[in-house]
Amino acid sequence: MKERIYLFDTTLRDGQQTPGIDFSVEDKIAIAAMLDEFGLDYVEGGYPGANPTDTAFFEEKRTRRAKFVAFGMTKRAGVSASNDPGLATLLQAKADGICYVAKSWDYHVRVALGVTNEENLETIRASVEAARAAGREPLVDCEHFFDGFKANPDYALACARTAYDAGARWVVLCDTNGGTQPSEVRDIVAQVIAAGIPGANLGIHAHDDTGQAVANSLAAIEAGVRQVQGTINGIGERCGNANLVTIVPTLALKPHFAERFETGVSAEALAGLSRLSRAFDELLNRAPEAQAPYVGASAFATKAGIHASAIVKEPKTYEHVPPETVGNRRKVMVSDQGGKANFIAELRRRGIDVPKDSSRLDALIAVVKEREAEGYAYEGADASFELLARGMLHSLPDFFRVTSFRCLVERRFDANGNLKTVSEAVVKVMVDGEEKMSVAEGDGPINALDIALRKDLGKFQDEIGDLELVDYKVRILNGGTEAITRVLIESHDSTGARWWTVGVSTNIIDASFQALMDSIIYKLMKNREMAGLVAAE
Amino acid sequence: MKERIYLFDTTLRDGQQTPGIDFSVEDKIAIAAMLDEFGLDYVEGGYPGANPTDTAFFEEKRTRRAKFVAFGMTKRAGVSASNDPGLATLLQAKADGICYVAKSWDYHVRVALGVTNEENLETIRASVEAARAAGREPLVDCEHFFDGFKANPDYALACARTAYDAGARWVVLCDTNGGTQPSEVRDIVAQVIAAGIPGANLGIHAHDDTGQAVANSLAAIEAGVRQVQGTINGIGERCGNANLVTIVPTLALKPHFAERFETGVSAEALAGLSRLSRAFDELLNRAPEAQAPYVGASAFATKAGIHASAIVKEPKTYEHVPPETVGNRRKVMVSDQGGKANFIAELRRRGIDVPKDSSRLDALIAVVKEREAEGYAYEGADASFELLARGMLHSLPDFFRVTSFRCLVERRFDANGNLKTVSEAVVKVMVDGEEKMSVAEGDGPINALDIALRKDLGKFQDEIGDLELVDYKVRILNGGTEAITRVLIESHDSTGARWWTVGVSTNIIDASFQALMDSIIYKLMKNREMAGLVAAE
Repeated sequence: MKERIYLFDTTLRDGQQTPGIDFSVEDKIAIAAMLDEFGLDYVEGGYPGANPTDTAFFEEKRTRRAKFVAFGMTKRAGVSASNDPGLATLLQAKADGICYVAKSWDYHVRVALGVTNEENLETIRASVEAARAAGREPLVDCEHFFDGFKANPDYALACARTAYDAGARWVVLCDTNGGTQPSEVRDIVAQVIAAGIPGANLGIHAHDDTGQAVANSLAAIEAGVRQVQGTINGIGERCGNANLVTIVPTLALKPHFAERFETGVSAEALAGLSRLSRAFDELLNRAPEAQAPYVGASAFATKAGIHASAIVKEPKTYEHVPPETVGNRRKVMVSDQGGKANFIAELRRRGIDVPKDSSRLDALIAVVKEREAEGYAYEGADASFELLARGMLHSLPDFFRVTSFRCLVERRFDANGNLKTVSEAVVKVMVDGEEKMSVAEGDGPINALDIALRKDLGKFQDEIGDLELVDYKVRILNGGTEAITRVLIESHDSTGARWWTVGVSTNIIDASFQALMDSIIYKLMKNREMAGLVAAE
Repeated sequence: MKERIYLFDTTLRDGQQTPGIDFSVEDKIAIAAMLDEFGLDYVEGGYPGANPTDTAFFEEKRTRRAKFVAFGMTKRAGVSASNDPGLATLLQAKADGICYVAKSWDYHVRVALGVTNEENLETIRASVEAARAAGREPLVDCEHFFDGFKANPDYALACARTAYDAGARWVVLCDTNGGTQPSEVRDIVAQVIAAGIPGANLGIHAHDDTGQAVANSLAAIEAGVRQVQGTINGIGERCGNANLVTIVPTLALKPHFAERFETGVSAEALAGLSRLSRAFDELLNRAPEAQAPYVGASAFATKAGIHASAIVKEPKTYEHVPPETVGNRRKVMVSDQGGKANFIAELRRRGIDVPKDSSRLDALIAVVKEREAEGYAYEGADASFELLARGMLHSLPDFFRVTSFRCLVERRFDANGNLKTVSEAVVKVMVDGEEKMSVAEGDGPINALDIALRKDLGKFQDEIGDLELVDYKVRILNGGTEAITRVLIESHDSTGARWWTVGVSTNIIDASFQALMDSIIYKLMKNREMAGLVAAE
């Protein structure tokens, strides 16, 4: 029989404390649905009464399976629970549970609340009882528990015990300042349990201020707590909260934990973890972290020559968990450092078969190495790599040819005497023996060139209607304005496909042109491939 | 007496395995100097012989204080140490130490090396002895040590013991796949020490595949190892290596460790940690992580809410360490109390005096905040900040005015039928009521603009003859080709002065123009200031 670990998500509450993150009611509804679907046990939605967004969000229950939790302060000292308007708002929220934040460090009770230690215990007791009376599951976040315990263990324990005795389903030990070390967490949790509060009623709430929020959470579980609080992608105040996207697969997949524990997240849901993590970043409009554990684009990527050939032979011994269990994938990267085995594996994954002793393959490897020495970065530009490989190993259709282009940026005073900058691009393209000339203005020379390039490609024009540029990156590879410029472009289309292309030149316009061209050609080739696959069926 | 923990940096070796990161020899020289200056004990520079960059990097010793280490494979089985060309290259590298990677998982010995267990031990022994004979400090990275120990503890121990007995200064236990949990690390390290290899000769090399590289490293130290390997900002293969930028302050500032241990990093060097971390990201041309422990812009930030006012009153009880100990600063986002004092101090440092209650000062602060919200980064552009401040608080001479400019980039076939890209810029400048028009070609539109701008500034022309651009950086601040572009330019002159200027626009040419203009105006202002100082004496 495995022991159940309960997962408590605070993305919508503590996650909202992240500098730069502000959720709308619509954001919160969308995120709550994702969390619920994933199989988390508790979704803390915010602090009804504290701001209009959270108040509106709690007008309805927003989860189907997970318990929906409202966060708030305990009642004020000096008024009865029934006479505290803040508490009343909290109890009226359409929530399954109420998570109170309660001081458990005597210093803060005195300085921040200005009440006696006994009064603070009384507010905890009365607030928990009020939640129970209102038919809500009571939870108590013991704020500054670990620092409080170090300063005055008896009082910190008294706070936790008061919450437990009053009927709190969960007493959550919070490392509010985030500086507690895993050994200290382990040690203090053991003392709390020894003092008579069962681990089955204890939770852990950790922050990442020493980069150990995940380790602190897992240490607390090893020491006996059975609820863990965290957020998606570890967002949260300062350095963030414990990252549930890291904790959940660790509990499920690492034998050290998986042999003893289970959670409410199914294996099927876990296989959607990478998608969940990326969809969340998408909603926040930020680039996913490539090196994120389990779900990052690089989490199962290998560059090294010495490991790469072995990984192709025997992936299991080089991967701590199989990438597909978390919906991620293995990536053996083409780069300067990679060997022939890398190349063949990568080509095969792209449906390009080539014999190991092909002289064309050797030529391709030589060209890739030479170009990477010039500044190309094919490991980050899969589409440019594929075009180069197909072109050199087999052949590519000659869709169209740009015979010339011109970009003009002019800054001058307009008719009203205002300084104005105008960017214009002119492109000449040959399609099917016919010359087309297009002109466009843009927000800058590259934007103008992009618009002009895609304005009239004759018979191919219909095919590129859904092509969109989603990211554009520039890197100067060495100093000075005469330096080499590398441009990386990310594109996508309506099929959901995403691809990356690269251009390198001493001239930024030239580098951008190369990457833009590769993106368009890749799109046309991809369309043909898909049509070919359909035709072959 | 505190125990010494030795810090081993592998930014330039394992860090180079990071997808998307490729160091040039110049990058490596700059980074090695930063690491050396910071006070790390070992700097591993790369794998001489494996690629031209690393071979060139090891032509000289690149550190003054730290030991400079070359990484490489142990000798091949079946040849003697003196007949192995790879080993010979390694031993010829200008290094203080040699760090060998050695298999310690019997499965890998059989499958990847294809040799017997005994042959593998023999290659370890002979390689360590060869390093000693060459006068190099020998270190052995026991690859896959933890997974190997779980599969066959006796053989993993035999590998470690062979390295130790042969005279390796450090036997480094590597969690190569990054999946080992802190409790397992603690347990296995204890067993290694119990088997007779002293902790004083053991190191830990952890990866972040379960988000616990820092916790694993610290758990190993608690269990007895005395060397820790890691990288700046946690770069490295897949999810990265243990982050030294997190580990070093944790060892130095958290009482749990600081009471028992010390490192070679002084308190003064630690106060430069945030700068080190950001300078490293700058060199990689990537945005620093705001939520990074200790050094992130948000690491000591608090958003409006229940904590903010308390933090202003009593910061110590809300911060796990004082931000200034790591060179970071507190950020209370509602009422930035430190804001004004910071500004005045910064201005005074630049010789600009301003009374605290000046309304011009308030206006300057407002403009800086507004511009930083638009994407300007005055922290990295001291000259642009000084020009803005002087202009708003006092006044700036009106040296010259650019009335218009035009950049043209054209790609076309030349007379010989070769595709050619030409960049040309035309600039109109008013100097002393006289209009000057200059034209220039360059390697790209920005280079052309720079040359044209500085071609004829009339009576100021002589003064800017020694002005040189030394670095040019572009960052795209959000996705798409319509994104905001930030340009940072570094300039210097024959006096040895260096200054940084910034420009921001949707148009890269415009952004570059702003930064180029600021650089020239700063140079002219600086000349006048120095002349003024001389005249005043």
